[in-house]
Parts: sequence; C-alpha cells; structure tokens
Amino acid sequence: MDEFERITRLRQRFAGASAHVVLGIGDDAAVLRGGPSDVVISVDSAVEGVHFDRAFGSWRVLAARAFTAAVSDLAAMGATPRAALSSLIVPRELEAGAFDELNAGLADAAARYACPIVGGNLAAGRELSLTTTVIGAVDGPALTRSAARPGDAIYVTGSLGGAALGLHLLQLSAAETAPAFVERWQKPCARIAEGQRLRAVAHAAIDVSDGALQDLGHICEASGFAAELEVERLPLPDGLRELARELGQDPLALALLGGEDYELIYTLPSTLVDPAAGTRIGRMLDVPGTPVLIDAAGKTLALPGRGYRHFG
Amino acid sequence: MDEFERITRLRQRFAGASAHVVLGIGDDAAVLRGGPSDVVISVDSAVEGVHFDRAFGSWRVLAARAFTAAVSDLAAMGATPRAALSSLIVPRELEAGAFDELNAGLADAAARYACPIVGGNLAAGRELSLTTTVIGAVDGPALTRSAARPGDAIYVTGSLGGAALGLHLLQLSAAETAPAFVERWQKPCARIAEGQRLRAVAHAAIDVSDGALQDLGHICEASGFAAELEVERLPLPDGLRELARELGQDPLALALLGGEDYELIYTLPSTLVDPAAGTRIGRMLDVPGTPVLIDAAGKTLALPGRGYRHFG
Repeated sequence: MDEFERITRLRQRFAGASAHVVLGIGDDAAVLRGGPSDVVISVDSAVEGVHFDRAFGSWRVLAARAFTAAVSDLAAMGATPRAALSSLIVPRELEAGAFDELNAGLADAAARYACPIVGGNLAAGRELSLTTTVIGAVDGPALTRSAARPGDAIYVTGSLGGAALGLHLLQLSAAETAPAFVERWQKPCARIAEGQRLRAVAHAAIDVSDGALQDLGHICEASGFAAELEVERLPLPDGLRELARELGQDPLALALLGGEDYELIYTLPSTLVDPAAGTRIGRMLDVPGTPVLIDAAGKTLALPGRGYRHFG
Repeated sequence: MDEFERITRLRQRFAGASAHVVLGIGDDAAVLRGGPSDVVISVDSAVEGVHFDRAFGSWRVLAARAFTAAVSDLAAMGATPRAALSSLIVPRELEAGAFDELNAGLADAAARYACPIVGGNLAAGRELSLTTTVIGAVDGPALTRSAARPGDAIYVTGSLGGAALGLHLLQLSAAETAPAFVERWQKPCARIAEGQRLRAVAHAAIDVSDGALQDLGHICEASGFAAELEVERLPLPDGLRELARELGQDPLALALLGGEDYELIYTLPSTLVDPAAGTRIGRMLDVPGTPVLIDAAGKTLALPGRGYRHFG
C-alpha cells in the first residue's frame, strides 16, 4: 500500500459531514465555520512503547483510546467537540490491515464524540505514534484549572484506579483475570456531557490523566490553594480493593497515582448540588499548597508517591 | 531536567500575549477568541531520520523549519496565522541544552509568523518528532486546491529547487560549498503575505512541500483538469544549474521533484495581474489529467520522475 493509497483510504474513512465543517480532508488545511463561540484547542500524543504496547489491545481499541485521551481535554474545559486532526507516524513495515484498524478505531471515537477528523498528516517513522488535535467550542468562559476557591467541595466523576489496575493486568499478560478492569484502561470515556453541565457552575476542573493526586495538584498550583482529600471517600470500582491486594498492589496508590481514568476532578461552591452526579472527595483549603490526604477522623496520612512522569 | 522543569521552561518560553488568545499554555486546552472568521487548521510532523537529520542544522534552525512547514499550509489557504500547538516526542537522553534550543527555534518561528504557541504536549519516545498544529483565520472563502479552471495561468512564488540542492549538499556533508542553497533548505519562508493577497483572486493554490510536479498534480486531481508546465520558465535560483551539474544532479529534477521549497503554486485567470509577483510557469488545460511538461516550442517532454513519498 503506497502513500497515496493510504491517504485515499484515510479520506474515505473520514469523509464525514458536519454543519461546522466548511472543508474537510483533502486540501492544505481544513476549514471550520466561524461563529460567536470561542475555540478550544488541545493536542495529545500516544507513543507505542510509552503510552501503550501493541499487546494491550487491538489496533482499533488502542487508536480509539488515543483519540479519547485528546477529547478528554475538551471535556475538562466544558467544551463541545467540533473537529479533530490526526497526525500518524507509522513504521513502513506496519501491515495494511493494522493501518486500516488504527483508522477504524479513530473513526469509532470520532463518531462517538461527534468530533469528525477533518485533516491530519501521515509520516513514516521507526516508532508508531498517534497525535490527535481536537478543536471544540464554548459559549461563554471555558472551565479552567485556576479558579478553585477556599471552601469549594472537590468532586470526581465515576471511579478511580480501575484503569491502573487494568494496565497492571495487561502488563502481567493476565487480562482474562478481570476483563472489566482491562476495559477501564482500554476503553475510557471522555466526560463531555459532564464537563458541559459543569462549565457554568464549577470553579475549576481537570481530567485525570497522570493520576488523581497529581492532577488535583495542578488545580492547587493554578488556583493558589491547597486541598484536603478524604481517602475513604474515594470512589473505587467494585472489586478493586480485593483484586489489588491479591496482586500485591495498594488500592489507594492505584486510585491516587494510577491515572488514565479520564474522569473529571472539579470543585464546586460547597452549597451547590453537583450537576455531574460525581462523588465528593474533599475540599479546597484557605492556604497555598498541595493536596494533603486525611482519613475520616481528619487525621493526615502519608502520600503514597506520585503520578506518571515522562522525564526524571 | 524532570518533566515539570521542562514544562515550566516551555511555559516561560511561550508565554506570549495576543488579542486572539483568551487562554494560553497551562490548562487542559487553550482558548481562542471566536468571531466571524472561519477557522483554518492543519498539522504537520517532522521526524528525525525521515524529515531531517540532526547534522543538517542546529536544533534551533531545525525546529523553526518544522514550525514553518506547518505554517506554510496556512499560507496555501490564504489564511492569517492565529495560534499553534506544539507536540514534541523527545528521547529521554536528549540534553537539556538541545531541548531549550528546540523550543527557542519554535519560538523564533512563532514570533516571525505572529502565530503564538498556546499549548502542546510533551512525551518521551525513542524517536524525536515535532508535530505542529496551526490555527488560522480567513475572512471569506479559503483558497483551495480544487477550483483551478481551464485556461488559468499557473504561477509560482520565489524559486524552485534550491532547497533540494541544499539538502543534497547537507547529505554530502558539503554545506560549505554553497551556504545559500543550504539556507534555502534550513530556513524556508512560509508565503503568508502572498497567500493573503491571492485568496480573493486566485482560483487554486498549494504549497510546494513534496515537489512542484507532485503538488501541481494535486491541484489537477482536485480540480479535474490537466496542466501544462513550460520547463524553460521554471524560476531556478542563480547558480543552481551550474552547481547541480557539477554534482551530477539534473537541475530540472531538483526544481520539479525536490520539494521543501515551501513556495506557493497557484492559478489565476489569465487576464489578471499576479498580486503575489510570482513567475508564470504554465496553464491549466481543458481536459482531465495530470501535469505535462513542454519546452518553449510546445513540445512535450518526458517527466523526470516523481516527488517524495513516505510509503511505497
């Protein structure tokens, strides 16, 4: 399959229509309809051997996951997805079938989030990577990390730690032990609807990519206030504690440091009802600082470590 | 230098202000001011060992070049640059000094094109790559590849073949032979002003990245008409013919197949004066097909080959 055949396949795969797309794949750039909404843009890369291993899922599943991780940043801003660009670096020896499956996975996720792929780039390289640029819109101010206030209640959507446990099982080649956890890693959900509901009322939000503790730390740093996290309130998926202990893993470390759950952590005025139906896990303090862990009695606990870092 | 130090340096480097940027680096996504203009978006990757070799220029020059290649797609649409996202995949062993130089080069190009870097992504990988997403604006229809018409005159800005000859010298480790050609490869110019002037009057445009013949072929394919290219009209830089022959290279092949000149090829109604001060090199025909080469007498010449392809 030569370059033009590959590009023709990409064009056919991604030839979707949308009221917001003036010009899609096939020119030097894509064109989106302007309008009063502000434009929200983000980019995320998934590199084979760093963010995923090809044994950790089908190409289709891995590509959809990479796309979802990018869309999750729009969720954390309260934005509505509008379009995406997909930049692929692909080893020349990757078979045509695998290439098609990658693009099928991107198309799956693009359809799921109503975020059509309107352009991209295809290059040869030794190392496979998928870089997804997402473009969204907000009517009014976006939901940032930097406006959490003292006394805010801290919430999280869904549950924490499942993706990290699933990844651990994949690394042990033991996916069949607990497919539900493996699916938490393989098939995350970007919380677009929750982000949209939160945008007008939440003070701050971030998505959980590097680990809940580290990501909450970004809210603390950007907002200028410390936070208190009640570890006994953390929403762990059913069965996580038991399986984690069987595997010699600390359930709390999975939930706090694991990352890749792509849930939203957000802060709300403490009197508000949470429109995203999340779990209340702590509160913002009136001093500068980083997150601290407390038990139900209010006693401070030691931190289990830190989240994922690419360097150092 | 750990990940957060690296990201802090990126934030400091790219903390520029612009009337169009509501929110820059430091959140889950960046926010650009909405407005009546349509949004033009494109992405381009430069992979070490594929698009460049680290011996072919300083990190600063190589990074500015990668950024410019992305901006060039905005030029080809007649768009005004608004903002960029920079997604870097960097080997862990790359020294801090090299990392800083890469970002200095990105900042140079961002300043040159008034296209501030408002976000991005940093990941570890075995293979160094720079993926740049550019966002621009057009007031009115963008300049596409697909509306060239029979009888249109075909023009090109600047000159062709210099970048390919410069790359050839770099590959021979003979840059000192002719630094001016080497600079044509190292320091291309995205033709933003020319694209803007052409947008309202040109029928079609493309930037020369893969080779003039191949890129004109894209106009032919998208527009549905063949083109006639007068090879004796091709604007070659001074001294190219002589040096090419000395090196055993075909000057015509350099100009037609070399690519990476980042000039614009465009078509205009034959009665118009070219607002971009380019060189007239041919005309669109009234039959479907690909570009054909002719000499001054109108005799058809054989094609010297084809442009760069990543696969096959």
